[in-house]
Amino acid sequence: MDQLKSNSANSCPLTPLGFLERAAIVYGESTSIVYNNSTYTWSQTHRRCLRLASSLVSSFGVQRGQVVSVVAANIPAMYELQFAVPMSGAVLNNINTRLDACTLFNLLTHSESKLVFVDSFFSSLVLEAVSMFSKPPVLVLIVDDNDDASPTVDFITTYEEMVENGDSDFKWVRPKSEWDPIVLNYTSGTTSHPKGVVHCHRGIYLVTVDYLVNWAIPKNPVYLWTLPIFHSNGWSFPWGMAAVGGTNICLRKVDAAKIYRLIKQHGVTHMCGAPVLFNILTNSPHSEPLKNPINFMTGGSPPPVPMIVKAESLGFIVTHAYGLTEVAGPVVTCAWKQQWDNLPPTERARLKARQGVRTAGVTAVDVVDAETGGSVKRDGYTVGDIVLKGGCVMLGYLKDQVATSACIRENGWFYTGDLGVMHQDGYLEIKDRSKDVIISGGENINSIEVESVVHTNTAVNEVAVVAKPDEFWGETPCAFVSLKSDVVITEKEIIEFCRERMAHYMVPKRVVFMEELPKTSTGKIQKYLLRQIAKTLAREGNPLNGYDGMVPSAT
Amino acid sequence: MDQLKSNSANSCPLTPLGFLERAAIVYGESTSIVYNNSTYTWSQTHRRCLRLASSLVSSFGVQRGQVVSVVAANIPAMYELQFAVPMSGAVLNNINTRLDACTLFNLLTHSESKLVFVDSFFSSLVLEAVSMFSKPPVLVLIVDDNDDASPTVDFITTYEEMVENGDSDFKWVRPKSEWDPIVLNYTSGTTSHPKGVVHCHRGIYLVTVDYLVNWAIPKNPVYLWTLPIFHSNGWSFPWGMAAVGGTNICLRKVDAAKIYRLIKQHGVTHMCGAPVLFNILTNSPHSEPLKNPINFMTGGSPPPVPMIVKAESLGFIVTHAYGLTEVAGPVVTCAWKQQWDNLPPTERARLKARQGVRTAGVTAVDVVDAETGGSVKRDGYTVGDIVLKGGCVMLGYLKDQVATSACIRENGWFYTGDLGVMHQDGYLEIKDRSKDVIISGGENINSIEVESVVHTNTAVNEVAVVAKPDEFWGETPCAFVSLKSDVVITEKEIIEFCRERMAHYMVPKRVVFMEELPKTSTGKIQKYLLRQIAKTLAREGNPLNGYDGMVPSAT
Repeated sequence: MDQLKSNSANSCPLTPLGFLERAAIVYGESTSIVYNNSTYTWSQTHRRCLRLASSLVSSFGVQRGQVVSVVAANIPAMYELQFAVPMSGAVLNNINTRLDACTLFNLLTHSESKLVFVDSFFSSLVLEAVSMFSKPPVLVLIVDDNDDASPTVDFITTYEEMVENGDSDFKWVRPKSEWDPIVLNYTSGTTSHPKGVVHCHRGIYLVTVDYLVNWAIPKNPVYLWTLPIFHSNGWSFPWGMAAVGGTNICLRKVDAAKIYRLIKQHGVTHMCGAPVLFNILTNSPHSEPLKNPINFMTGGSPPPVPMIVKAESLGFIVTHAYGLTEVAGPVVTCAWKQQWDNLPPTERARLKARQGVRTAGVTAVDVVDAETGGSVKRDGYTVGDIVLKGGCVMLGYLKDQVATSACIRENGWFYTGDLGVMHQDGYLEIKDRSKDVIISGGENINSIEVESVVHTNTAVNEVAVVAKPDEFWGETPCAFVSLKSDVVITEKEIIEFCRERMAHYMVPKRVVFMEELPKTSTGKIQKYLLRQIAKTLAREGNPLNGYDGMVPSAT
Repeated sequence: MDQLKSNSANSCPLTPLGFLERAAIVYGESTSIVYNNSTYTWSQTHRRCLRLASSLVSSFGVQRGQVVSVVAANIPAMYELQFAVPMSGAVLNNINTRLDACTLFNLLTHSESKLVFVDSFFSSLVLEAVSMFSKPPVLVLIVDDNDDASPTVDFITTYEEMVENGDSDFKWVRPKSEWDPIVLNYTSGTTSHPKGVVHCHRGIYLVTVDYLVNWAIPKNPVYLWTLPIFHSNGWSFPWGMAAVGGTNICLRKVDAAKIYRLIKQHGVTHMCGAPVLFNILTNSPHSEPLKNPINFMTGGSPPPVPMIVKAESLGFIVTHAYGLTEVAGPVVTCAWKQQWDNLPPTERARLKARQGVRTAGVTAVDVVDAETGGSVKRDGYTVGDIVLKGGCVMLGYLKDQVATSACIRENGWFYTGDLGVMHQDGYLEIKDRSKDVIISGGENINSIEVESVVHTNTAVNEVAVVAKPDEFWGETPCAFVSLKSDVVITEKEIIEFCRERMAHYMVPKRVVFMEELPKTSTGKIQKYLLRQIAKTLAREGNPLNGYDGMVPSAT
């Protein structure tokens, strides 16, 4: 028995890229992508991806393991690039379109991006970032179907030209090992230490197949792209849609009227998004009971109970999922029990607001004591670190062994940084997000990054940034500042200062001046006290203006 | 980028055993198993499996990698053992209940089985086999709920005693590597060289998740066990049912009236079986249009078109799958295209009778030229070897490096032994099964094995066994025999001779005497000519008698 090892026929690397090849055979004539008046079939998408991958290799000399970045909204090219870039052997880096030029420069530098695909809607942003390079990466312009932008000299070519000039008989570059990197996602980057999560082919394969089973996604679903693909690769849904022959309804911008129109027009069956999307959909004048139920997976931050109740009353079947960019998708979900069906709506929503249990593909999830590392009591009360292990866990942070070791410990667990409790029934509930993370409209904001920018203002003595609860966004950043003596500066001026130096969604929406920030005896700022103050401030209410779809802007 | 390798949190071995642990949390109060008047919940099944695994380790000293065998019908214990045995660290060997004692002895010897679980219905068979040992394995009796059998001195204990004495807090034995063996399945064994297929935890995990996605199995399916679990581990469905919280309806014996009754009583949603099961279900006086459609996966041999048409007219949604014990489950299926929906029933059935395309989890399937190894033309006409590669391919045959190397080639392909064509649309169709295999009622019969037994009859000069088409069984073995000079023996005598020496379902149903078997100039028997003769014989018709459910008996 011991003599039987892996062999040449069963050790082929796991990769999600093969799903596309198969989709071209099984779903060749089915619709793969719809965007405004354009539609594609799986056969076309397959050929277009092969052509693009071949162009990357033969026209631009992209080599195995090099990074190719993309700054784009949820348009057809963005979908195709999820396959085409890794099919060239390169590592795909999906970049948050809402970042500022400086951060973008930091990420392109850190990732050593060889080439950047640029959605014409974001070309000025990218050109500003690229102007900071002495030796800039090559830029390729993606011209939106509905845009008349024509490439300037800054772009070496257009996306469509690369597709046209490519070879559809290209033999795509398979990973040599299933542990080879496939995607890179930055979770921060304003400061000098960008954190770039690297996932391998195996990890993405496993998480993709896992959510397909977990959400019981049938064949030929109609998936509406309300979740930004740049956000954790759209929770790995681009790859899964190819495995089940789904139709991807692209969407440049979240807009309730448009979403309701697309739902009717295409018979949408599935969509994902942060809880803020519920607000948009349920508060819209266009909101109306759905003709057919839609499966809605929400995550990023816990959905408030009334929000779930309202969404379900319209016909959305809400699944609450928990994940992080570091695990590439929804790996803990509030798996529904048949016996809960007959509970009152509010009780159902309360149960659903818990994060839940690991998916079948994850090896283990636990809540452990920070000191001993042992499991906390299953009492729904004792708080501990949320940890997990499984094939979905990232390889690590790019060029950052220290940060990698801090969360992937030698005891075999990945420490999420979130705190939670384990209920008696084995369901997990988050009690406190990682101390440094503010989740606003589904996007993570690192409070340390914001603090470091505020601190560069010469008027500022001390600063601490915490989450302020927000009915609409979930949370917004709130800065507590003490000033140097004899200096005068207004809240508005500090906000303006930040807007010039960071992505607008990260800018504090409120600045509170204090004579001195509260500290422990050892001089550590007592952030929990500041959070209490922020909670009180939250009762002042929040305007809904300034929302442009994916992530909140500073007002 | 190169510095990022697998790490402690993401390299935990893939295994299907964790599905049970999770089912106990998510589906704890849902029904896991139903058998006559007994029902179990997932929480109970989980605890019972832990108890049994602990008993194997602590009471019987079963060690990691040792083989534990089971001879049982589709009863609750059989289902539980699919988890419990590997949870003890042992390798599970599911044995065909229709074998003869001699073959059983061969398999238990070859596998070095430490312990054998014996369904009371098969105890005389097992006791006969075990009597041939000088140092027999330990026997544990499984007493059927509906049986009043009490253990004889031959059995060390009963299954239920082991469960009762076990520890439900047992920490189950996780594989050290995902390539560690989990199951052993014999595909032959009458002769001295049993072929034992060994699969690893990774392989079973991958194939299980794969068919869940491919068949789009929803949560809480109701699965009727018409397919024998001993047959290729029930195509790996025992493990998948735990991942989705299915209800397993156990069934000792295939019986149309009972099946229709269980369908109504439990709201069956899914079932699997060889095409012969269609015959039983559609020819039964109890057959009637289903109230709710049932997903029916059929495989083992190609389903005849009229059979599909008839089954679908009753409300079965037929999925045609192709697999082998060597790949642990359905890895090629005739994936349905929406545009085929509106074709006439016969045309739909004709398309459905093709084997189809690889599932998303299989790396590649091809039809290759025997000489060059290159792909044959996609013309639906050029015949070649059907080959595949992917995580589902077995580790190899136990203690048989020669047989392993013969099918797992250095070029990275597993050679199935079947011949087929590739259609223009990328769908595969089998044209000729492996030369040596006869598929009768879904069970594979190795013609070489049958020949070697016939040959031991002193009257026989030459023998060749081929498949005779059979309307009911699909195929039955037909022996062509030339006798030594001056010897007289009848067809009946040869059949009787075989019945005493091999499993009854393997015994030739017809013996045709020839003066000399047709040969090539190099002396090789021309089996294709014999197959032609057998086809002509087939027109004589086939009685339906002798069917006892799972596999055909000799008449």
